[in-house]
Amino acid sequence: MTALLDGIDSPEDLKALGISQLPDLAQEIRETLIGFCTAHGGHLGSNLGAVELTMALHYVFESPQDRIIFDVSHQSYTHKILTGRRQAFCDPERFGSVSGFTNSAESPHDHFDLGHTGTSISLALGIATARDLAGEDYAVTALIGDGSLSSGTAFEGLNNASGFQGKLIIVCNDNEMAIDENVGGLYGNLAELRNSGGRSAHNIFKDLGFDYRYVEEGNDVESLIGMFESVKEVEHPVIVHVHTRKALGIGDHRVPGMHEGHDRNNHWCAPVATGGKGGGDRKPDAHNARYTYGSMAMRSLVPRFANEASLVVISPATAGSNGILPDFIEEAGNHYIDVGIAEEHAVALACGIAKAGGAPVVATSSTFFQRAYDQIQQELALNASAVTLLVFATGISGSDVTHSGAFDIALLGNLPGITCLAPTSGQELLDMLAWSTGEARRPVLIRMPGEEVLASERAEGHELSAREAVRRWRESTGGTGGQCHGSHRRQHGGESLGNPWERYAVSHQGSEVALLGLGNAYPLAMRIAQALRHDGTRPNSMDPTVIDPRQYSTVDATTLHALLPGHDLVVTLEDSQLNGGWGHRIASYYAETPMRVLTIGADMAFTDRIPLSDLSSRYGMDAPSILGRIHQVLGH
Amino acid sequence: MTALLDGIDSPEDLKALGISQLPDLAQEIRETLIGFCTAHGGHLGSNLGAVELTMALHYVFESPQDRIIFDVSHQSYTHKILTGRRQAFCDPERFGSVSGFTNSAESPHDHFDLGHTGTSISLALGIATARDLAGEDYAVTALIGDGSLSSGTAFEGLNNASGFQGKLIIVCNDNEMAIDENVGGLYGNLAELRNSGGRSAHNIFKDLGFDYRYVEEGNDVESLIGMFESVKEVEHPVIVHVHTRKALGIGDHRVPGMHEGHDRNNHWCAPVATGGKGGGDRKPDAHNARYTYGSMAMRSLVPRFANEASLVVISPATAGSNGILPDFIEEAGNHYIDVGIAEEHAVALACGIAKAGGAPVVATSSTFFQRAYDQIQQELALNASAVTLLVFATGISGSDVTHSGAFDIALLGNLPGITCLAPTSGQELLDMLAWSTGEARRPVLIRMPGEEVLASERAEGHELSAREAVRRWRESTGGTGGQCHGSHRRQHGGESLGNPWERYAVSHQGSEVALLGLGNAYPLAMRIAQALRHDGTRPNSMDPTVIDPRQYSTVDATTLHALLPGHDLVVTLEDSQLNGGWGHRIASYYAETPMRVLTIGADMAFTDRIPLSDLSSRYGMDAPSILGRIHQVLGH
Repeated sequence: MTALLDGIDSPEDLKALGISQLPDLAQEIRETLIGFCTAHGGHLGSNLGAVELTMALHYVFESPQDRIIFDVSHQSYTHKILTGRRQAFCDPERFGSVSGFTNSAESPHDHFDLGHTGTSISLALGIATARDLAGEDYAVTALIGDGSLSSGTAFEGLNNASGFQGKLIIVCNDNEMAIDENVGGLYGNLAELRNSGGRSAHNIFKDLGFDYRYVEEGNDVESLIGMFESVKEVEHPVIVHVHTRKALGIGDHRVPGMHEGHDRNNHWCAPVATGGKGGGDRKPDAHNARYTYGSMAMRSLVPRFANEASLVVISPATAGSNGILPDFIEEAGNHYIDVGIAEEHAVALACGIAKAGGAPVVATSSTFFQRAYDQIQQELALNASAVTLLVFATGISGSDVTHSGAFDIALLGNLPGITCLAPTSGQELLDMLAWSTGEARRPVLIRMPGEEVLASERAEGHELSAREAVRRWRESTGGTGGQCHGSHRRQHGGESLGNPWERYAVSHQGSEVALLGLGNAYPLAMRIAQALRHDGTRPNSMDPTVIDPRQYSTVDATTLHALLPGHDLVVTLEDSQLNGGWGHRIASYYAETPMRVLTIGADMAFTDRIPLSDLSSRYGMDAPSILGRIHQVLGH
Repeated sequence: MTALLDGIDSPEDLKALGISQLPDLAQEIRETLIGFCTAHGGHLGSNLGAVELTMALHYVFESPQDRIIFDVSHQSYTHKILTGRRQAFCDPERFGSVSGFTNSAESPHDHFDLGHTGTSISLALGIATARDLAGEDYAVTALIGDGSLSSGTAFEGLNNASGFQGKLIIVCNDNEMAIDENVGGLYGNLAELRNSGGRSAHNIFKDLGFDYRYVEEGNDVESLIGMFESVKEVEHPVIVHVHTRKALGIGDHRVPGMHEGHDRNNHWCAPVATGGKGGGDRKPDAHNARYTYGSMAMRSLVPRFANEASLVVISPATAGSNGILPDFIEEAGNHYIDVGIAEEHAVALACGIAKAGGAPVVATSSTFFQRAYDQIQQELALNASAVTLLVFATGISGSDVTHSGAFDIALLGNLPGITCLAPTSGQELLDMLAWSTGEARRPVLIRMPGEEVLASERAEGHELSAREAVRRWRESTGGTGGQCHGSHRRQHGGESLGNPWERYAVSHQGSEVALLGLGNAYPLAMRIAQALRHDGTRPNSMDPTVIDPRQYSTVDATTLHALLPGHDLVVTLEDSQLNGGWGHRIASYYAETPMRVLTIGADMAFTDRIPLSDLSSRYGMDAPSILGRIHQVLGH
């Protein structure tokens, strides 16, 4: 079944095959990808579409001497299979042994670690620039999907690359689909080019000054090889526009929920065996925090749409992972805007909506919000735009290195003018969202609760199904569920009322030690307190104070000052990087006083797929380590 | 001379004029702009080109009900003159009473405070979206210059705006020039459109799906009025491409160094009376720190270009302000790359060059580096790309709110993997730059010295002319000036050697109080030490320890630990925001010990054109405040 593939340990082995054998090899790779993704999970659709494209690149070019740069690198599995890493996809015991993205530590064929969209053109241009300055000679190819072209950084790269005076190949892998549906005028032009076999006079690439080539049969490896041979030695930048079919070979019914072609379910395939869910970014683990709280937040807005015309949710792609589900999207109608992969635009668009009196909510993960840093600082914070940012996937996790949330507080918590909230339950999240989209009329960031909060809510028996949780919450707010806030705001002519979460919440008043657990770290603070109260190995048990700060944009000096008598030690807990984080502010507040402060949080470091428990131990963020340090500082 | 203008206190007054009177009014406004800019300084060229455009917009539309959004708002002077603020441009006693950018606190006609490029389209689309959701009816116009279109965020806005189902006007003010020369393939298409009177079949705007209109006579107010009348009620997005002439009316010789048309000297006009310099971003105050140290840094690289093929300086526009001068650019040849206003591309391009073995330097101000946050975090830091970032204009200053450097350490100092250096002299800057572009082979950020450092060097009689300073520095390094580093690196196969600035420098070992002054704050630390030594009002003078940390990416625990015996108080001084800054890390380091720490730095706040001395007092960053706090903490 993998007779040809079994002999491929490097691109040299690929080149040893005759062209006529390549379709069979493509078929073997395709079967391997389906087997791997359905068992392990992975970006199945994009990889299935790019099998022949990747084979042709490796057949024609001499990697790694010739550089191939995979934009965002969702689509690099075939590349990995062909460059000595096939066992990671063929051998179930080695599934997970390679990254889902290109990784320079894995192979000299991977030039960068990439997981964010749109930079491949600039990176390739940089390599080509250095090559020519040094008088060297090799080919440089950027492979970028159509979905990535909507990001501003890709445009900056295109705009600058077209005038380059040297060899540079940019392959646009056009499978008619980004992670979700493509959004924007660019895609009308790509469609016109596809429909005209690349011959339309309306051609954005030519307008930008490129030599443009088109390949209609983007899953025909011989056509592709011919094209790449023909552009290999061209002494100026060339765009090769390749029409491929996303998820080709998946057929129907082989993977539940996935179909050939452009379908939003084709981005990610969850393991079929374990979850029975099959393909689809739309159907992530319904039990995870990101999905649970995201769908709860969305569901809480639905009843308000009828009365609040410009209450709008904006998502720059990857909506499904954040619990923004097809049923919500349908009910929201024009209250939901997917802008495609364009985070900068998403934030500035929201600021425009806010300026015109609307209540926009922008939802994405912290790692993608960093793509809009300038717009968050200027158009949002500096302009005091009444926008709510729902920040998903914050804090340390076992994620790959390019999608870590460990930096979120340092990223967004140090901007003036943004009220940063950290709810510690679903109900509190809904209260905060109702306020931020209602009477607040200011920039508000809500750090979406993570797995720790979800686990603690489960343990307490809270209702966590989105519909039911929202129903109960609306009952508890007098059936209004935030609509009162909207009308209240209108009555008061848009004036801002106070922030109800400005003061830290003292959950338990004790003595000696005060534990401040921010957001996701609050359950840990509770556990530490419990352990200190019932520590049988110590002669005197303690009664620590426990505090839920609920926000991290200001230091609540009143509450902190009140701890000075009666406490010797303050312990701050956050699940994010300490440097630039929240605990350091608390330490600084007490630095002129006799109060000792222990700041618990993550190191300033990149980590790649390290299990969360290992990371917690490494950073001393686990209960035993923290208890040990508390006793040490107190001299016990 | 301003007979017509004297009667204009609002757009209503403008509309009361006959169209035939408007050219005369334009002439009066032009004279006013020249008078204002030559006396006060300002963005003269862009404003002169857009006089008629702005008049026509206000003649046709009903501002502020109809919204006009000025991209980056360099070109908003005529708008301000027409909306009740003409005295700020006519009356020398009121020069400086309004911001150089649109400012929502000044006027209801200014919808946003904008000073960064490229967001006007997204903001306008947001307003139009909210308008339609709320069932309201007014016109929304974004006015964006051709130079701004190279920024990725503008492309994201265009891509998303073209499919909007409602009224939206995007005016492209094409004066054939950005701040510097336009860079990129886009500008070839704009030229083709201009040359064809807007009729070329190659039209990037049409390819993106826009209804496109062209005005060749962009300084003819009647043509413009006709065009805006014709598109005012169009129920879908329209691009109006207007060909204007930058600096029109300046003639020759009226303002030294400035000429009509597309010339890089037309961006900024410095006050002629005070400096005798006239126009030109190329010739900023040769006595300021940004210019002095920037030109010194550039000059130090020149002798290396002959032997180091891929030592490259990259500037995303505004080169002149950073001391990147025409003579350097000429000598650098292909070692200098201006990418236009495209910071994201600039950083990713540099990472590509570094990956191919080159030594790229990216130079811009801290406020513009934030536009490339994602690329700095992912492509640069995470990929350990051997790129040097020269960060200009850091720390608090009297700048306008959109260009503040007060946030630079929080912005870039909390990213893993970047070595952040803060030189306290020109010679140290050159040492650091030679290392970062030589043997370091890692991401290095150099925080360019500011006015405080420059003043202290002057006081010590240091040589500060770029050529002479570099000559002396090269002599002191054995005539190599960093070239040895390059060859050293090659001999060692690219391995990274240690960071010579990892340890803090103890300038003076004293006792009781240790003063740590980072970068620009080091001269202040020296002054505080001096004052403590010679405080005649106190019975016992002190002998404080003084430390120059030189870097802020790691905490030098060895040096800090050594302060524990013999010191009661550590004072950290930085000229940037405390939250997310450097001093908080030091406070956190000592938080478990009896050491008291005073962290001196800026509040987390936006400030707009507040004189530096006022800001220093406000934040307690002046010597008397700091001395007072030291005595207070020590119980004196």
